[in-house]
Amino acid sequence: MSTETAPFIDLDAADRRDLQIAILVCPGYAPIDVIGVHTMFGILPGAQVHLVWKDLDEIVGIPTFPTRATTTFPDCPADLDVLFAGAVLADTFEDEETLAFLADRGSRARWVGGACAGSLLLGAAGLLRGYRATTNFQLHDLLPSFGAIPARGNVVEDRNRITAGPVTGGIEIALRLVQDFYGDDVAREMELQTEYAPTPLYGVGTPELAGPELTRRALDHGAAMGAPLLAVAERAARRLGVAAVTG
Amino acid sequence: MSTETAPFIDLDAADRRDLQIAILVCPGYAPIDVIGVHTMFGILPGAQVHLVWKDLDEIVGIPTFPTRATTTFPDCPADLDVLFAGAVLADTFEDEETLAFLADRGSRARWVGGACAGSLLLGAAGLLRGYRATTNFQLHDLLPSFGAIPARGNVVEDRNRITAGPVTGGIEIALRLVQDFYGDDVAREMELQTEYAPTPLYGVGTPELAGPELTRRALDHGAAMGAPLLAVAERAARRLGVAAVTG
Repeated sequence: MSTETAPFIDLDAADRRDLQIAILVCPGYAPIDVIGVHTMFGILPGAQVHLVWKDLDEIVGIPTFPTRATTTFPDCPADLDVLFAGAVLADTFEDEETLAFLADRGSRARWVGGACAGSLLLGAAGLLRGYRATTNFQLHDLLPSFGAIPARGNVVEDRNRITAGPVTGGIEIALRLVQDFYGDDVAREMELQTEYAPTPLYGVGTPELAGPELTRRALDHGAAMGAPLLAVAERAARRLGVAAVTG
Repeated sequence: MSTETAPFIDLDAADRRDLQIAILVCPGYAPIDVIGVHTMFGILPGAQVHLVWKDLDEIVGIPTFPTRATTTFPDCPADLDVLFAGAVLADTFEDEETLAFLADRGSRARWVGGACAGSLLLGAAGLLRGYRATTNFQLHDLLPSFGAIPARGNVVEDRNRITAGPVTGGIEIALRLVQDFYGDDVAREMELQTEYAPTPLYGVGTPELAGPELTRRALDHGAAMGAPLLAVAERAARRLGVAAVTG
């Protein structure tokens, strides 16, 4: 089962691209991180979007979102145009089967992308070693423990690695990848088709915009979210042979 | 099953709100439209988020996204703080059980929200009669057929009806509702926690920004998406006793 049967956007035949897109879903995955890539490619003709996991049993995303993968790890195409992951819970960071799958497909994929803690997960699989990358600001200090060179920006690109922090990171990564695969005309059209012209309510959506007081409060209130990853980061650093940075 | 067990954001006890949020999911629903409301409330302590449908069997969203509801129509709380719907396929617009559920819960909910074609679905249930509302630009001309008074803007509010067109409409509606329920301090913090500070690639995410040529191309390429709703809109207008507008 893939999304290829229901494209919503007609393109000229010459603009069609046969792409294989694989998105990790697993118990505790964050649907909001992956839905931008899923939908943007899913509504374009020719792109096959796979929700991949070990099996096709029901899994529950977070916040509670019962989901099922469409494609197992073994059935996932060997050569992907995009391998993508969003945030997952701490235990997936040390699941050898998942890390081996990501490392294998990531070694050949045209693009390897991650949003929020998904970018750290790519690092845990060894895919960010020596690459500039970002993640959400609450976890940004952990990037070196996962082998990455920390960089700032909504979307950070280094060769074929593309990572993002914000809730809209998946959408912005998807638009950039549409630009790469389909060209500017189609990407501009997709920005309009999705009416991606956001108007934040307050304009405080980055630590720089928010200032130190609000940022401090957000970090305090979000600490429980990041806490399980601190121990994971230390062990990842040891395994990757890089210097751990305590968050 | 609700999201209440896994909040990620700690708030002071005084800031906690016990809310009941119901989000429609169904065969052919658009996950991207509902995930903003789902996640924003799901990570806040106290809010119970229900994915509602007729039963708890697997349903497949569009693009292909196997999902299961967490709460059936009969089990959904009678009095909701938020009733929310995103885009669905044409047949759901004429499904009496769904329309009756929306009409009932919508008649008492503190807020009734819709994103993209979900706002037209609210109209089909009689919930936008005489209310200013919006939807995605490809379907905007159909608003009067569903009883609504067409209005422009990323998010349109009229009394307790709140509707949006863009792919980020669910996020922007959610932030506005967090502001209403929790106040400015928490809403500002949520804008930062989610790093909602988007940077569009081109800046052509509205028809006004895109200009007539790109807008024409987008409408042509997206026509297949809206076509099934034209007949639905005519029948809705007859049923609601309003003048139909052919798209």
